[in-house]
Amino acid sequence: MVETQSDDILANADTEDVSLLVVGDPYGATTHTDIVLRARALKIPTRVIHNASIMNAVGACGLQLYNFGQTVSLVFFTDSWRPDSFYDRIKENADLGMHTLVLLDIKVKEQSEENLARGRKIYEPPRYMSIPTAVSQLVEVEEKRQGGSLKPDETLAIGLSRVGGGAEERVVAGTLAELLSQSPEVFGEPLHSLVIVGKRVHHLEVEYAESFAVNRETWRDVAQRVYGCSLD
Amino acid sequence: MVETQSDDILANADTEDVSLLVVGDPYGATTHTDIVLRARALKIPTRVIHNASIMNAVGACGLQLYNFGQTVSLVFFTDSWRPDSFYDRIKENADLGMHTLVLLDIKVKEQSEENLARGRKIYEPPRYMSIPTAVSQLVEVEEKRQGGSLKPDETLAIGLSRVGGGAEERVVAGTLAELLSQSPEVFGEPLHSLVIVGKRVHHLEVEYAESFAVNRETWRDVAQRVYGCSLD
Repeated sequence: MVETQSDDILANADTEDVSLLVVGDPYGATTHTDIVLRARALKIPTRVIHNASIMNAVGACGLQLYNFGQTVSLVFFTDSWRPDSFYDRIKENADLGMHTLVLLDIKVKEQSEENLARGRKIYEPPRYMSIPTAVSQLVEVEEKRQGGSLKPDETLAIGLSRVGGGAEERVVAGTLAELLSQSPEVFGEPLHSLVIVGKRVHHLEVEYAESFAVNRETWRDVAQRVYGCSLD
Repeated sequence: MVETQSDDILANADTEDVSLLVVGDPYGATTHTDIVLRARALKIPTRVIHNASIMNAVGACGLQLYNFGQTVSLVFFTDSWRPDSFYDRIKENADLGMHTLVLLDIKVKEQSEENLARGRKIYEPPRYMSIPTAVSQLVEVEEKRQGGSLKPDETLAIGLSRVGGGAEERVVAGTLAELLSQSPEVFGEPLHSLVIVGKRVHHLEVEYAESFAVNRETWRDVAQRVYGCSLD
């Protein structure tokens, strides 16, 4: 929307006040950076009101924000398109012991290939990637790459849904294999996000997230045995 | 404050509503994670309202949040205490081409060593680390470490002050040497933060930040020559 209609949004912005309301922090998306640049080129003054976004609200899972490395995005795999370059980013973070925030795909106002080809403005129902779908894609790529950064039974992860949504918020922690085996309703409604826990995790982070674990025993066991954490 | 008075804050929280108002997002500081843990141990239900914080509002400088690595904190050097372990974190990020957000020290309600020793509750005036002080400390540590991650004339950085503060917000971009040579008022009032630009910077990020450059020519020159950016 914003990408294709930025000219419309900016059309009268030199003479009247125009507001663009977004989800999260405006600078979380390249699109919004782009529209500021366009406004600047047209000499239209802009003002940004910052907001919470998943990039900082992810702290709700108990992992410390300053221990996160680069953020990656995961797209829905299709039969013919299963891009895995995100794996390199996760591995870079993992090799340094940093956590990775994985943002999950959202398909809104998408057209089927047929409708697109025929120029029919018929849109598919919206789809939001769930935590189990994300984990299954991660595990598939690990099997292919064999980099060791996403081992089903030895990598800890935390799924988050509707962060900041009060009673609707869910945080679910476990090994990748555990998250994969939960029934979908455990994770609550979309939007979902996922965090891969890095090896430099502090014992206080592990203890905080333990209350979200699907199985406290395996959570503590992997944290101690694989991550080298000393827990009480 | 919160560290030492968390028992007071939680004292009646089992029978009445207690709010703790903080700057930024509550999970940006370990202290707040800690008080949630204490509340949990006392079976006191908690609810967090997320907020913008420097961890995401830093996007105002035009660098993309997903290209940031781990965040580091820089403390005021003293004659006898010049800790430089943050350099390893910056180098890890830099080696992977990621940006680094550097949070600058704040000294509030600090006692002098003498007053502390004598048990006198006399506090020093608050001190907030400025961008030039931060840069001078970074350059000093680079000289000592010789890791090549913080070269005065070849490392680009962006100083931010009062992000989200409307007309008081300032963003100033340049090489470390350029930021060091600006007069203090260029950076505006505290609080200040600093970003070290990583080598994987995208040309759109460079172009966005160019409008904040103290010298557009050197900004573009270093981006192209040292960072390998293709600019228009």
